[in-house]
Amino acid sequence: MSWEENVRKVVPYTPGEQPKIQNIIKLNTNENPYPPAPAVAEAIKIMDVDRFKKYPDPSCSVLVDAIADFYNVSSDRVFVGVGSDDVLAMAFLTFFNSDKPVLFPDITYSFYDVWANLYRIPFKQIPLNEDFTITKEDYFGENGGVVIANPNAPTGVELPLKDIEEILQKNRDVVVIVDEAYIDFGGESALPLIDKYDNLLVVQTFSKSRSMAGMRIGYAFGNEKLIKYLSDVKYSFNSYTMNTPTLELGALAISNRDYFDKTRNMVIGTRERVKKELKELGFEFADSKTNFIFAKHPDKSGKEIFANLRSRGIIVRRFDLPRIDEYLRISIGTDEEMDTLIRALKEII
Amino acid sequence: MSWEENVRKVVPYTPGEQPKIQNIIKLNTNENPYPPAPAVAEAIKIMDVDRFKKYPDPSCSVLVDAIADFYNVSSDRVFVGVGSDDVLAMAFLTFFNSDKPVLFPDITYSFYDVWANLYRIPFKQIPLNEDFTITKEDYFGENGGVVIANPNAPTGVELPLKDIEEILQKNRDVVVIVDEAYIDFGGESALPLIDKYDNLLVVQTFSKSRSMAGMRIGYAFGNEKLIKYLSDVKYSFNSYTMNTPTLELGALAISNRDYFDKTRNMVIGTRERVKKELKELGFEFADSKTNFIFAKHPDKSGKEIFANLRSRGIIVRRFDLPRIDEYLRISIGTDEEMDTLIRALKEII
Repeated sequence: MSWEENVRKVVPYTPGEQPKIQNIIKLNTNENPYPPAPAVAEAIKIMDVDRFKKYPDPSCSVLVDAIADFYNVSSDRVFVGVGSDDVLAMAFLTFFNSDKPVLFPDITYSFYDVWANLYRIPFKQIPLNEDFTITKEDYFGENGGVVIANPNAPTGVELPLKDIEEILQKNRDVVVIVDEAYIDFGGESALPLIDKYDNLLVVQTFSKSRSMAGMRIGYAFGNEKLIKYLSDVKYSFNSYTMNTPTLELGALAISNRDYFDKTRNMVIGTRERVKKELKELGFEFADSKTNFIFAKHPDKSGKEIFANLRSRGIIVRRFDLPRIDEYLRISIGTDEEMDTLIRALKEII
Repeated sequence: MSWEENVRKVVPYTPGEQPKIQNIIKLNTNENPYPPAPAVAEAIKIMDVDRFKKYPDPSCSVLVDAIADFYNVSSDRVFVGVGSDDVLAMAFLTFFNSDKPVLFPDITYSFYDVWANLYRIPFKQIPLNEDFTITKEDYFGENGGVVIANPNAPTGVELPLKDIEEILQKNRDVVVIVDEAYIDFGGESALPLIDKYDNLLVVQTFSKSRSMAGMRIGYAFGNEKLIKYLSDVKYSFNSYTMNTPTLELGALAISNRDYFDKTRNMVIGTRERVKKELKELGFEFADSKTNFIFAKHPDKSGKEIFANLRSRGIIVRRFDLPRIDEYLRISIGTDEEMDTLIRALKEII
């Protein structure tokens, strides 16, 4: 026998490319084109690194309190982690321990089935409609939990909050996770529903609307009992996941509401005019409430456009998966970056 | 039925207290009393936070390469994580999937049984001898894996490397983890053995000898196949665990060999003279090769000394566990801090 027989073998998630070359236009991982709130730059310059010799605060209170304050919820309803991936992975491990399958769409964030496989959680992928919408009734049957990305990725399509609430009403006996990574670009958050449904976990992130992908901060809201279960599992995994600068810079980044509104509105504005320009070029896409557009062209294959853009130093995302292999997921960059993209697409089409 | 029925319920690890009050002498979580290498302070002042809007490098290459360089191993034999807790938790999940019990001592790092419980891994705790040494033959029987903290915590006792190698020879069919969080304070590392044993994982950390507990950086060495399995599971959990400043500051911190040698020798020097002073006060302890001393006093209970020190603003660690509840684990601080401790103990005893 070899030690390899008892290895947990997995097919890992493939993250979007993080190229190390300079001078590319990077529209492949839905990052924000604008820098973090100005207080972050000021604070890091005067940060006392001597304190790094001590462990960080395991309760993460400076960051938890800043998030609680921004959203006007109590701190015992907030959980933080190393990006929303960490929060979601912990939630899968904590809440999905049934023999019944966890339900999520066939086209959605491609980490859900990876976590389910990692933790040996049974799951069932429910096909989206042809227009990438969700039929809420598909989630009313018996199950071990429900996960809905809203707005969905990589499609950009929002499920109306009243449908989310109906799914919650039909699933009081399992945990329902609403993954709102992109909610700040025009969607309606399920956060107010945590008062009514103690089985709802709403997950958000600093990686998109907060311009902090490089700092790895995710967070979740839920009933205090739900958050306590999640924290217990987190403390059983790693007591100190968030390091000292992350806690302090994260708290500063979320406290500036004006900057947040300004930058997300800039992204939304750019998205809306890029939608028009893509339509003029003949692209087809469902309406997006996110910081990306998921589009295909009737005359040119996704693979071809992807390769051509890449040769011009413009990187978008393409998923080599059934039903969506003709599509490109294009992140919303600065206006200048999107102008360059549109010019390139005009030449390609 | 309630959603609570399918919650993974655990008894979480209790980390050592991280008090928020000022002016205490904190000797309870084995932190380094000296600041990180000087380059860290210089680099953070000029760090460009605009880059935080982009995801970090998921392969962590700047940090992995710096560690590989320092230890003169190839980069594909190095794994990094959010503290050695993250590395160890991933290793438990990846390698311990047998029906047979994983073996570790009854008195050791108290996270091992927490991870085993979290992941439903069968385990067997093998009693240390009365003098806190390990009998290597106890680890020769059939098992699902072996975990040895060396030097052991909270005892401080080192298992000779030749005994580690014998344990490896008798366990070629399972993964053997050697947790070397404290190795730089006088122990002999098992790192050279990774060439000979493809089932050996050696885990180390920036939290002790590198003065970076607040940054959460752990790492491991192993055969490239072992590291690949570990990386696959890590990528299935969270693609980006290490954030941008952590990667860059970590690489700078480990590159300064002179500073590393100077500060660890200062800690070792302080430890050796504190040993003498504690002995003069009548304390009893096994010889420590770490940055802490695990001691008891024949005339005063551990509980009493702990409480008395605390009332004086000196915090040490006490475990309310069988066999060791009379002991105090005292981290090695600066010479000045240890002088204050010794003066306090003189008054208490």
